[in-house]
Amino acid sequence: MSQRPVPRRDLPDRLRVRSNSRPKLSDSDADRCFGWEKDKDKAVAATMENLARLEELQYKMYADGRFAMLIALQAIDGGGKDSTIRRVFGAFNPQGCTVTAFKAPSAEELRHDYLWRIHKQAPARGEIAVFNRSHYEDVLIVRVNDLVPEDVWSRRYEQINEFERLLDACGTRVVKIFLHISKEEQRARFQERLNDRRKNWKFDTGDLEKRQQWTAYTRAFEAMFARCSTDHAPWYVIPANRKWFRDFAVSQVLMYEFEQLPLRFPAPNFDPKSIKLT
Amino acid sequence: MSQRPVPRRDLPDRLRVRSNSRPKLSDSDADRCFGWEKDKDKAVAATMENLARLEELQYKMYADGRFAMLIALQAIDGGGKDSTIRRVFGAFNPQGCTVTAFKAPSAEELRHDYLWRIHKQAPARGEIAVFNRSHYEDVLIVRVNDLVPEDVWSRRYEQINEFERLLDACGTRVVKIFLHISKEEQRARFQERLNDRRKNWKFDTGDLEKRQQWTAYTRAFEAMFARCSTDHAPWYVIPANRKWFRDFAVSQVLMYEFEQLPLRFPAPNFDPKSIKLT
Repeated sequence: MSQRPVPRRDLPDRLRVRSNSRPKLSDSDADRCFGWEKDKDKAVAATMENLARLEELQYKMYADGRFAMLIALQAIDGGGKDSTIRRVFGAFNPQGCTVTAFKAPSAEELRHDYLWRIHKQAPARGEIAVFNRSHYEDVLIVRVNDLVPEDVWSRRYEQINEFERLLDACGTRVVKIFLHISKEEQRARFQERLNDRRKNWKFDTGDLEKRQQWTAYTRAFEAMFARCSTDHAPWYVIPANRKWFRDFAVSQVLMYEFEQLPLRFPAPNFDPKSIKLT
Repeated sequence: MSQRPVPRRDLPDRLRVRSNSRPKLSDSDADRCFGWEKDKDKAVAATMENLARLEELQYKMYADGRFAMLIALQAIDGGGKDSTIRRVFGAFNPQGCTVTAFKAPSAEELRHDYLWRIHKQAPARGEIAVFNRSHYEDVLIVRVNDLVPEDVWSRRYEQINEFERLLDACGTRVVKIFLHISKEEQRARFQERLNDRRKNWKFDTGDLEKRQQWTAYTRAFEAMFARCSTDHAPWYVIPANRKWFRDFAVSQVLMYEFEQLPLRFPAPNFDPKSIKLT
């Protein structure tokens, strides 16, 4: 018996974490395709269609100049952040789309509050900012490794919600995407990095330590969803074991989020017909 | 009698401004296709091939981590800077490629020397920085409109050469691309912006004033080529009336410049075979 695929336009709603819900991550969910398993070709074609449309929407948002979009990407190592950026966000015009990878904070950054370096990279009106990792590391690696006391990190969830509420109120749509892979899939991807000489450089022996902390990370991810998926800045959990489905789902989410913005081409402050070119 | 097209790999050399030469810009040159007029389809296919290859070269440069590339784009208004960025530089992975549009300097920027804001946006090792306009505005609009005295702007050519020499010595390849259109082509493109409601926002009535200064700009461009096309940071003059040829030529120049870098995948500082994943 074949399951009918969930319609494209309904996917974002199925992937969004409801505010005040307490979602659990299970390894099996990372394989979900919402009935698209047998329609992979259609999903790939739909993704291409979405990417072309997303570039148009970006152009319109740029011309409009009233709104911006901040897209935060989180995942465990090997979750596919880099590859999603290349394959999905690569569709955007690079002018007006910045990608910032947040690594361990610098000495200067550590002398400021943890949102200081994040705010600096927020998108200008008309622009898209993609965060490869984000302020959520301050309730993920920081929590898992006890980098600050619990009474410090536990207050951050609310601080982050308030920060995102400010961005939203000032015209920046905040979209948060979690790429969910299973522990076995991570093993396979790490092995690939070890086997392929062109990928050796991506392997970091420190990743093995984090792999040992899988359960603690899962708990931290679940707390992040429960406490920081809000109406003004929702989390989307994307099943990401299969790259074709991941790209399809992310592109649908972005389409949906852009369509919430009342974009328009601005009227010129002069009469185009009155201008005679010589 | 049909002219044989200049071989792809020879184009960059034909487009490069020789150091210590004094090239002139003529309107007719903006239409040149170096014999590719009848092979437009081949040029378009070659461009697609180049773009795929450029993304691979970018990946290798990123992995290598020793070199960077700074690409400065200059042109008169309507010259096609935005469209070249979208169509050619859009091929790069947005992670590791930043595009900076240098507009009129801010109050803070004006309190520093003119290269301060430029240096801040120089690419990190492994990365590509595309400049939409650049420090060359400080010997273009500044010279044409007498924004600083001649004895100030006239010293800048040598200062710029020294600045670019520093970047080059520290691993950043500096590539400067001038998109050359004719005055008649500019008229047609402005008219298009006036006619198309979706493009009205791109039309700036201030552009008309600059159009009146066509000859003064041409003189300033020629001085910039004569004084700042160096072996360590060459200028390329791209005939840009025909967009398909422009994209083809720019992609060939980029291919050539990447191929000058001795890129390699770094060897890991551990033995990949020694690592057992659990």
